[in-house]
Amino acid sequence: MTQTTKEPLLPKITSPRDLDGLSLPDLERLAGEIRDVLCNLVSARSAHFASNLGVVELCLALHQTFDFLHDRLIWDTGHQIYPHKLITGRYPQFHTIRTKGGLMGYPNPEESDYDLFVTGHAGASVSTAVGLASGDRLMRDGEDRWTVAVIGDGAFPSGVVYEALCNIRESGKRLLVVLNDNKMSICPRVGGMADYLDRLRMSGAYSGMKNEVVKALQNIPMLGDPVERMLTQLKEAAKAGLHGGMLFEDLGMRYVGPIDGHNVALVRKYLRMAKKSEGPVLLHVVTEKGHGFHPATEDPVLFHAPPQFQRRENGELQMKKSGGRAYTHAASEAIHAVMQRDPRVTTLTAAMCQGNKLERVRDDFPDRFFDTGICEAHAVAFAAGQAKVGMRPIVDIYSTFLQRSFDHIFQEVALQDLPVTFMLDRGGLAGPDGATHHGVFDLGYLRLFPNMTVMAPGDAHDLPAMLDLALAHDGPCAIRYPKAPETTVPGKRAPVEHGKAEVLRRGPDGLILCGGALLSDCLAAAAELAQEGLELTVVNARFIKPLDTETILPLAADGPFVITVEEAALAGGFGSAVLEALADAGHSTPVRRLGIPDRFIEHGEREELLADLGLDAAGIAQACREQAQACAPGQSV
Amino acid sequence: MTQTTKEPLLPKITSPRDLDGLSLPDLERLAGEIRDVLCNLVSARSAHFASNLGVVELCLALHQTFDFLHDRLIWDTGHQIYPHKLITGRYPQFHTIRTKGGLMGYPNPEESDYDLFVTGHAGASVSTAVGLASGDRLMRDGEDRWTVAVIGDGAFPSGVVYEALCNIRESGKRLLVVLNDNKMSICPRVGGMADYLDRLRMSGAYSGMKNEVVKALQNIPMLGDPVERMLTQLKEAAKAGLHGGMLFEDLGMRYVGPIDGHNVALVRKYLRMAKKSEGPVLLHVVTEKGHGFHPATEDPVLFHAPPQFQRRENGELQMKKSGGRAYTHAASEAIHAVMQRDPRVTTLTAAMCQGNKLERVRDDFPDRFFDTGICEAHAVAFAAGQAKVGMRPIVDIYSTFLQRSFDHIFQEVALQDLPVTFMLDRGGLAGPDGATHHGVFDLGYLRLFPNMTVMAPGDAHDLPAMLDLALAHDGPCAIRYPKAPETTVPGKRAPVEHGKAEVLRRGPDGLILCGGALLSDCLAAAAELAQEGLELTVVNARFIKPLDTETILPLAADGPFVITVEEAALAGGFGSAVLEALADAGHSTPVRRLGIPDRFIEHGEREELLADLGLDAAGIAQACREQAQACAPGQSV
Repeated sequence: MTQTTKEPLLPKITSPRDLDGLSLPDLERLAGEIRDVLCNLVSARSAHFASNLGVVELCLALHQTFDFLHDRLIWDTGHQIYPHKLITGRYPQFHTIRTKGGLMGYPNPEESDYDLFVTGHAGASVSTAVGLASGDRLMRDGEDRWTVAVIGDGAFPSGVVYEALCNIRESGKRLLVVLNDNKMSICPRVGGMADYLDRLRMSGAYSGMKNEVVKALQNIPMLGDPVERMLTQLKEAAKAGLHGGMLFEDLGMRYVGPIDGHNVALVRKYLRMAKKSEGPVLLHVVTEKGHGFHPATEDPVLFHAPPQFQRRENGELQMKKSGGRAYTHAASEAIHAVMQRDPRVTTLTAAMCQGNKLERVRDDFPDRFFDTGICEAHAVAFAAGQAKVGMRPIVDIYSTFLQRSFDHIFQEVALQDLPVTFMLDRGGLAGPDGATHHGVFDLGYLRLFPNMTVMAPGDAHDLPAMLDLALAHDGPCAIRYPKAPETTVPGKRAPVEHGKAEVLRRGPDGLILCGGALLSDCLAAAAELAQEGLELTVVNARFIKPLDTETILPLAADGPFVITVEEAALAGGFGSAVLEALADAGHSTPVRRLGIPDRFIEHGEREELLADLGLDAAGIAQACREQAQACAPGQSV
Repeated sequence: MTQTTKEPLLPKITSPRDLDGLSLPDLERLAGEIRDVLCNLVSARSAHFASNLGVVELCLALHQTFDFLHDRLIWDTGHQIYPHKLITGRYPQFHTIRTKGGLMGYPNPEESDYDLFVTGHAGASVSTAVGLASGDRLMRDGEDRWTVAVIGDGAFPSGVVYEALCNIRESGKRLLVVLNDNKMSICPRVGGMADYLDRLRMSGAYSGMKNEVVKALQNIPMLGDPVERMLTQLKEAAKAGLHGGMLFEDLGMRYVGPIDGHNVALVRKYLRMAKKSEGPVLLHVVTEKGHGFHPATEDPVLFHAPPQFQRRENGELQMKKSGGRAYTHAASEAIHAVMQRDPRVTTLTAAMCQGNKLERVRDDFPDRFFDTGICEAHAVAFAAGQAKVGMRPIVDIYSTFLQRSFDHIFQEVALQDLPVTFMLDRGGLAGPDGATHHGVFDLGYLRLFPNMTVMAPGDAHDLPAMLDLALAHDGPCAIRYPKAPETTVPGKRAPVEHGKAEVLRRGPDGLILCGGALLSDCLAAAAELAQEGLELTVVNARFIKPLDTETILPLAADGPFVITVEEAALAGGFGSAVLEALADAGHSTPVRRLGIPDRFIEHGEREELLADLGLDAAGIAQACREQAQACAPGQSV
């Protein structure tokens, strides 16, 4: 961190235009101040960190070279947006980032005209940039606008990036893709594209050198046909090969780089060069994830989004302990246990090794652990191939990111009825990351597919038993659970059986059907209501599909009302599945559905978001009271 | 077509092993016989044609070189599977292909152990092949198995292919990807990868030539450092560059080709070579779509899946007229009209220019028409970019293929609330193509997303009005319609207004709510029932989301029962939306939902499939009768 003895610069930067007059030393000082703010923030709360430290100079150079109220800027994925927020008028609110009502941790057009798209899922920036540039060209007034997409090497293997590169010509000439290469996804990067970028970086091919080689080539004596013809080809090949980035040039972009992304003057120079050229241009910038903060460069995986930490007097960092065991831990332990037991089990993730706590699985079963990088579509089709030949793959991907695989869950898994197990972490409200990370559509979309079993554990007891069941079941299964501390319902529990719900409490005054881990809130609500004289039945549905109609229908028919509870979108979710079952059976018991309403949910702590939506014990109890009153004799329904 | 004067060979080929003893001339004769069968088939009914003519020799060579009861073979997309079916024991049933109860037009493991995956959506073959190879390696007993994926250049730009290439190393060494390059998607191929393949084909780089160049390079005098070092790099670059396919080599595959895919001996030779090498190998085979049938090579777009045709005595072909105007025509005309009127409107498709009858749109508005190739994910994110800067993009993609864009509909469109209009052709049962092509999940998954308006025209009258409405609406809209002849409901019609349903008939005895183009069947059923004294109300819902609760709820509350009708999956579909609305309003009118049950629907003519599911006038009338009886006084519900 830079010692800022002079008056700080950052508070005076109210818009990127305030950067215009800054000298190079001032820019460097500003970069230091931005890093200080980032460090202070992360000692106050968990936030994306290392990737933001890595793009400070790039961000300053971009805003100095372009005017992004006129030109267009897309930060792919968007977790590296903090320096951009700090210099686009949001320094005063920056301390609120990732808190409810505060700034988003991702781009947000509602905060600033400098943000174009709310993002969070990786890889789409090149496509949207091609669309922006194409649109600007067609709008006529926009012909002089540049569009810039900044995309990390972690996002770069996403299929949609390649689709965009294949269609890059539609952008016209004013498109710049900055490949921010920090050699990392969230976890260390994997795969063919990673290796390719490594080779590009190692080639040390800078433009000066290139010219020398071309000159040398011109001095090679002509040897007569057919070798002469070959040498012509050879020159072309050599130019491209030494030049580097032939892969990109093959797809129709001009490749420039690699350059040092922490040298703000150099980055500026290349950006200006790109701006003068006829695009589309790919500028390969090498940065260091965590740059300027030693512990983060040493361990960029931990510091991607570190837990809150404090610096001790001796300079050591003390990490704040997170609040107890989460469902993620239960899941990763369950996975480890089944892999230990059954050599047919493999585990696949898509750059979520750290997020899903799979390090021990990776280390103990290196042959059967696969991190595909940010390639969710491939991961699912790949798993289907393994399942076809007798393996039992587990695909462990956040609920929201598994959306990228929708069509492969359909064709490669459900249609073939293959035994692939999907573990959907962060099903429900994912907290401070906000709308792009909430996993609320999974119950709705997974239950669309024939052959699919969809489970949601009511608590930590259910989760490993569901995984066991999934691996023994001869067809596709999904298990979705929240980003939340584990809860465990006390008492003797029914074993997890395919398609069977669990009745945890019985009462004549109404039925609470819980589809997932809000179960303990449902039980707490029922306990509270019992004190008020209202005795409810509480069912842990466990299976969203197939629904246990044998258990549920008689209970629903007997009681005055049904309340369904889920941490998922109400449109097409668990509650709808219950409505379908009741309607199909000809029951007319009134049903009230509690869940995520038909709007995108903001960021904030999961508990506060749930409480706002009435999805906590108090909210569930209140809904029951209202329903009991509405259904009381003498009341119209 | 080959004149077969000798006794035909094809009937004797009961398994690929019967190919083993065949001489080269016999193989060529067999290829001719296979082409004859294909030509005869296509004069009897519409089927995939040109791509099958193109792979005859490749298919024979593959089955001679490998044993695909032991090794693994995946045909990407799968529409080029006919020659494979003919030589894997299905010649006797081949005349039944694409008819209900007959052979599928795509691979089908239920028909033969030679088929591994039911496919139809493009691009996943490389991923599943990597999975198969990886699984075989892990299963230990499978270490000597080869996995072969055959993928066309049309499917090759799909993002999932690139994701698979980036992860190719997980396959181990026994993976062969055959790139079947016929220079076509369904429509002429577009984009950067297409250009790259064109350059590879033009380079004429065969192995002999390569050796010469390498030799020449070794004779270049060493010029001392640093040029010496550069020349080393240069050699590498030259080797790769002349070699061709550096793009693939960059991603970790050995590239071999291009070779002539109609020379069966040559293809065999290269397949054997690949089999001896350490994989993964990409073999680039150049074929001609429609090879061996002159009209098809002349017009491969028409002959991709031509209408039924007959050969006249003078040799000319006579195409059978298709049965009247389809919804697709109404859609393309509506698109043409709005593009004429509004310069902000663009049209995007993903290799469905022909399927969606967009030729006139493409020709009349070349600047505003975009065919992304088989890149549905990119198409949607690209459209979002255009919309962001003020354009009004229409994304015109088959319902089932739009599934590939699920996550981009979520993030790039719905979350940003951008005015992108989705035209989902082939919503519902798509007929002879079968389960991979039926578009039955769209209502369920589209209505999950906040901000999304989901429309389903009741008839041809509604469709253009819905497009007008979508383009005037300030947010995302989807319009889904079937692959079916247009129907038009007679009489004076209510204008299409956002969120408003249309009441077409009123009666006190029950309510039919129709969500889509089965409307004329609903009206026919109501007319039939009126003759029996049952007077029903019939509502053209028009909007699946937002549902017109103002119109629907009072009608539902007043009547004895509600029947919902949709050509979509019942899980989470239109009927569920109606159930949700009724439950939320506290209504308990019995609802019976007619739609697609929870299983994958086979291939067959749409009308016969609908009739089997009770989704025709007779089925709807029968459901109403049953419901009326169940709800009659004195009957328990």
